Amino acid sequence: MGDVSFTEDELAETLRKILGGDHPGVRLGPGDDAALVDPSRHLTVLTVDMLVEGVDFERATATPRDVGYKAIAVNVSDVAAMGGSPRFALSAAGFPETTETGWIIELFAGMREAADEYAMAVVGGDLSRADRVVLSVTVTGEVPDGGAVMRTGARPGDRIVVTGALGAAAGGLRLLRAPAQSVAHVIGTPWARELVAAQSRPAARLGEGRTLARHGARAMIDVSDGLTLDLARLCRAGGVGAAITLGVVPVADTVRLLGEVMPVEPLALALEGGEDFELLAALPPDAVEGATKDLHERFGTPLTDIGEFREGSGLVAVGSAGSERPLEPKGWDHFGS
Amino acid sequence: MGDVSFTEDELAETLRKILGGDHPGVRLGPGDDAALVDPSRHLTVLTVDMLVEGVDFERATATPRDVGYKAIAVNVSDVAAMGGSPRFALSAAGFPETTETGWIIELFAGMREAADEYAMAVVGGDLSRADRVVLSVTVTGEVPDGGAVMRTGARPGDRIVVTGALGAAAGGLRLLRAPAQSVAHVIGTPWARELVAAQSRPAARLGEGRTLARHGARAMIDVSDGLTLDLARLCRAGGVGAAITLGVVPVADTVRLLGEVMPVEPLALALEGGEDFELLAALPPDAVEGATKDLHERFGTPLTDIGEFREGSGLVAVGSAGSERPLEPKGWDHFGS
Repeated sequence: MGDVSFTEDELAETLRKILGGDHPGVRLGPGDDAALVDPSRHLTVLTVDMLVEGVDFERATATPRDVGYKAIAVNVSDVAAMGGSPRFALSAAGFPETTETGWIIELFAGMREAADEYAMAVVGGDLSRADRVVLSVTVTGEVPDGGAVMRTGARPGDRIVVTGALGAAAGGLRLLRAPAQSVAHVIGTPWARELVAAQSRPAARLGEGRTLARHGARAMIDVSDGLTLDLARLCRAGGVGAAITLGVVPVADTVRLLGEVMPVEPLALALEGGEDFELLAALPPDAVEGATKDLHERFGTPLTDIGEFREGSGLVAVGSAGSERPLEPKGWDHFGS
Repeated sequence: MGDVSFTEDELAETLRKILGGDHPGVRLGPGDDAALVDPSRHLTVLTVDMLVEGVDFERATATPRDVGYKAIAVNVSDVAAMGGSPRFALSAAGFPETTETGWIIELFAGMREAADEYAMAVVGGDLSRADRVVLSVTVTGEVPDGGAVMRTGARPGDRIVVTGALGAAAGGLRLLRAPAQSVAHVIGTPWARELVAAQSRPAARLGEGRTLARHGARAMIDVSDGLTLDLARLCRAGGVGAAITLGVVPVADTVRLLGEVMPVEPLALALEGGEDFELLAALPPDAVEGATKDLHERFGTPLTDIGEFREGSGLVAVGSAGSERPLEPKGWDHFGS
């Protein structure tokens, strides 16, 4: 490594100590050819996400602990969007030769921190060399048979609901990427710190996902790439269209404050920003009130009814006077131009 | 992409078609937030391996189909080394912007080919951008409770056995990396093709792993990084030492032929070359004969008794006259100098 010469085995052993400790269901943790865990009586949920330096994070602005934390959280969010519960994680990580051992250790400490927060265990991994840091995390989870909420089930007439507020993660990214001098006067304020935290430490809506599933959500997705893009995915998967009322889209207060000091359009960040990891779901109209009350009481999380699924395809935006216009899905696309 | 402009969703949909089709146990394949699979009644085996361009393969010498195939096979080998059976795979892949879509499709076709060979399904994945191609594959599997073979169980007196023959994968790599002119006269020969195939299309010893487990293997590992390095891992995990008789180490015939045309030492490749994905196990002495016969009859795979585990630590090499000398574990280390 950059500072100390470690063999792969020695580094792996150090990282195992960070990840280690007894955890229910883990028969054999990191350090063998594979991990062994107890099977679930429910269906198994499997998901994977890769974070790449220079694409998904910058080492100049993200701490390794945040990167590790986020790598777990974004996968937990995918499990949440199925209405499931996470159980175990595996990590595969590649590092440039110049990476300091301390940086790697902090990355794994961040994974451990998030795993603890979601009552999971990191049970195995792989270490490799790479030009830039790359971290691929797989999460397994479980969901009762018949209880999973896929992307496909939205029906015309279903309400479009979204948890929490949107735009903060994208706002945090704008703040992190702004020239230091231009944001020096706000960077220490509570709302600016909140914006940065929304970007670097996203919260997976785990309990909210299970609750929405119990309230009869017919389709669900986490808002990872942008509200309009992820809504378009629900529409395509369900063979339906959608109309959202722009005036009621929950824009994070912090993004409105950011809009006062930087040239950003708060509503655009909320619609297209991505990485908020809020849950977007299709609920039968008569389930909205109960779900809203339940989410508020259990988690203090708002649920906002932002529109309805319709016959047809594509998105429309409903303006303040009830006028409608087509809404082009925009957001984060790894392969877009 | 390099040739055609694809969105991430469009590319993902194309790849899903390659991976698709009904598969027992898959409730929901690629395309949602996560995959859903039936749980096992046995213990769950979890493993992950990352292949990085420029480190684990070169695009100049490896076809994308081979890279995809190998990414699955190396994980299946880890499951085999536990005595388990693979069931499902997830892939996370990053590609440079210049990567041709056809290359990506071939990579996934290779994963599909290997998955079919091992009766598995690729149930999900993630696509990302990266500076160089990086492919992280996670495989889940199962093993009966009490039937898993870990790295820890070797006892003094146990025999050291290894499946197949060693050195061919490393020999194939030497051949691929040699200046074309220097190997032009051999590159089309059957043995040279066999060497290259050993490197680019490794076979996971799946049935052999289960059979060795049934015959009472007390410790097992796949030879991914080199015989001596992986043997040292079994020793460290078991708190034992090991003595191997150099004269009986099964060196692949193809490597001996390579030694006649290139300056390579066949025994050194067998001891330190890595990537053969043969299984190295600790067997009680009275189990060796039955296991050998069984492996031969079922799979046509040789099993060679190359030495014994001993009290103490470290490796010794036993020479032809019975003389012993310390043997330094050498092999592939991603973080070594």
